[in-house]
Amino acid sequence: MGEFELIRRYFAAAPVSRARLGIGDDCALLADCPPGECLAVSTDLLLAGRHFFEDVDPAALGWKSLAVNLSDLAAMGAQPVGFTLALALPVVDESWLSGFSAGLLDLAARHGCELLGGDTTRGPLAIGITIFGHVPPGQALRRDCGRADDDLWVSGELGAAAFAVRERLAGRPLVRGHPARERLERPLPRVALGRALLGTAHAAIDLSDGLRGDLGHLCERSRLGARIDWPHVPVSGSLADLPQADRVALALAGGDDYELLFSAPQAARETIAGLACEGAGGPVRIGSLTAEPGIRILNADATPISTDELSAFDHFR
Amino acid sequence: MGEFELIRRYFAAAPVSRARLGIGDDCALLADCPPGECLAVSTDLLLAGRHFFEDVDPAALGWKSLAVNLSDLAAMGAQPVGFTLALALPVVDESWLSGFSAGLLDLAARHGCELLGGDTTRGPLAIGITIFGHVPPGQALRRDCGRADDDLWVSGELGAAAFAVRERLAGRPLVRGHPARERLERPLPRVALGRALLGTAHAAIDLSDGLRGDLGHLCERSRLGARIDWPHVPVSGSLADLPQADRVALALAGGDDYELLFSAPQAARETIAGLACEGAGGPVRIGSLTAEPGIRILNADATPISTDELSAFDHFR
Repeated sequence: MGEFELIRRYFAAAPVSRARLGIGDDCALLADCPPGECLAVSTDLLLAGRHFFEDVDPAALGWKSLAVNLSDLAAMGAQPVGFTLALALPVVDESWLSGFSAGLLDLAARHGCELLGGDTTRGPLAIGITIFGHVPPGQALRRDCGRADDDLWVSGELGAAAFAVRERLAGRPLVRGHPARERLERPLPRVALGRALLGTAHAAIDLSDGLRGDLGHLCERSRLGARIDWPHVPVSGSLADLPQADRVALALAGGDDYELLFSAPQAARETIAGLACEGAGGPVRIGSLTAEPGIRILNADATPISTDELSAFDHFR
Repeated sequence: MGEFELIRRYFAAAPVSRARLGIGDDCALLADCPPGECLAVSTDLLLAGRHFFEDVDPAALGWKSLAVNLSDLAAMGAQPVGFTLALALPVVDESWLSGFSAGLLDLAARHGCELLGGDTTRGPLAIGITIFGHVPPGQALRRDCGRADDDLWVSGELGAAAFAVRERLAGRPLVRGHPARERLERPLPRVALGRALLGTAHAAIDLSDGLRGDLGHLCERSRLGARIDWPHVPVSGSLADLPQADRVALALAGGDDYELLFSAPQAARETIAGLACEGAGGPVRIGSLTAEPGIRILNADATPISTDELSAFDHFR
């Protein structure tokens, strides 16, 4: 099977309705934004052995490859429209391709997000997705729009995905279907919540590198500090039997949760508490932004939890 | 140097004016299209050892990585606006990064095409670019809009880049500055020509896989055949001393030329002949589209040149 047959068979079957021109030309042509909205764009490159285990179920990999990009749109409050896929494959494995494209296009269909075009090549397994969405520019959930005394919220439980990675690396892989493994392999991007927060939340970021690190990005861009009440942080039930130090490390510095962290005025508490997330409870209030710089994470008795050793994931450190 | 410092130092320096929000958030926000235009999108993934030699000058690599994407916009008649960059690096080599970003941002500035955002990770060297442009949708130079009896034109000389690759693979690398090596390493995307052809040309494609193969794509999508007059094909002067069979192979099946191949009505001959290309002469008329299917390439005496063995590059064959 050649490059063009591969594209036809596994990726070009999905009907293209929002795009004026889809797969098969030099460029795809994207229909106009709705009036008053602008285009939000994000890109992610996932590499075997770095972002995922080489033996991961291909359908889960297809799902997750798009999920991490949908999560970036969610963190902006953008409505998904479409995406491009750049795929490097070591070999043409039809069973793998069939699973990968099924998982990818399943999640795409759930969000009305169309595969617009792409590029395929032979090489070490790599998946590059660029995603597009619409958002009213004045309401977009930027990182730099947090305000002092805003409440800080997260959209769901933290730490499960990092726990699944830790168990796998320790030679104790979780069984298929274990909720923590599901969270790692099939995260649910909070797209509907992001849209619902437009006009209410001030700033948002998605939790890919861990709460401590991503909160740091939001604070840095908003030129503020933060206080987090550790007892309020919704820690995954999968971590219930672990020692406190492990719970702290996984929930605050574990990556791959793909929940949203956002700030909103105190006056919006009731509105936000009423918003349910896909496959989870509602958002949980965990602290606030502070005019005072620095991030403090406090126990119930107000003693600080040291997070010096909880650095965010950085691909080059 | 960490991931975020790397981005700041080498990629975030370019001022962002067209985007409403550039590097540093979950998404970039792109300003609206001009009225009546739509967004053209293309993506390419370049891998070391497959798309380029690992020891290539990093500035040339940065240039070429964007050039191949600009060429896709050119083939659509789109005006470049911006791009995202996904970069996998085996190590943080400041000298390499400095050269790569300089070459990339040099070409970007020449086309008013802004770096909007990206993703960096550690891994085998890979460069994924997704590019955006504007084009009036009704005039876009699609592959499927050729008409029988259209003239076929190419925008410049063919075969030089493939000659440079061949010499390198044969252990006879061309010296730096040799015109064929320049064509391989710093192709000039025909963006201005693509724009000038709006409303005149019917169909277009850029020559990345070789004339024979890319003409095949255009014919297939337009459901037509083609006749090419070999003596009219502008073969690179670098091939002048080669045997005819080598000239045919390199000019018709060599890739990486990044000239435009386009079809236009015979009535447009004078208009098109008057269009100069960046760094080259004007477009050259090499044949025509035919209602009869199949591609025939003819010598001056009308005998056919067999091209059965001249298959286009296919990453999975």
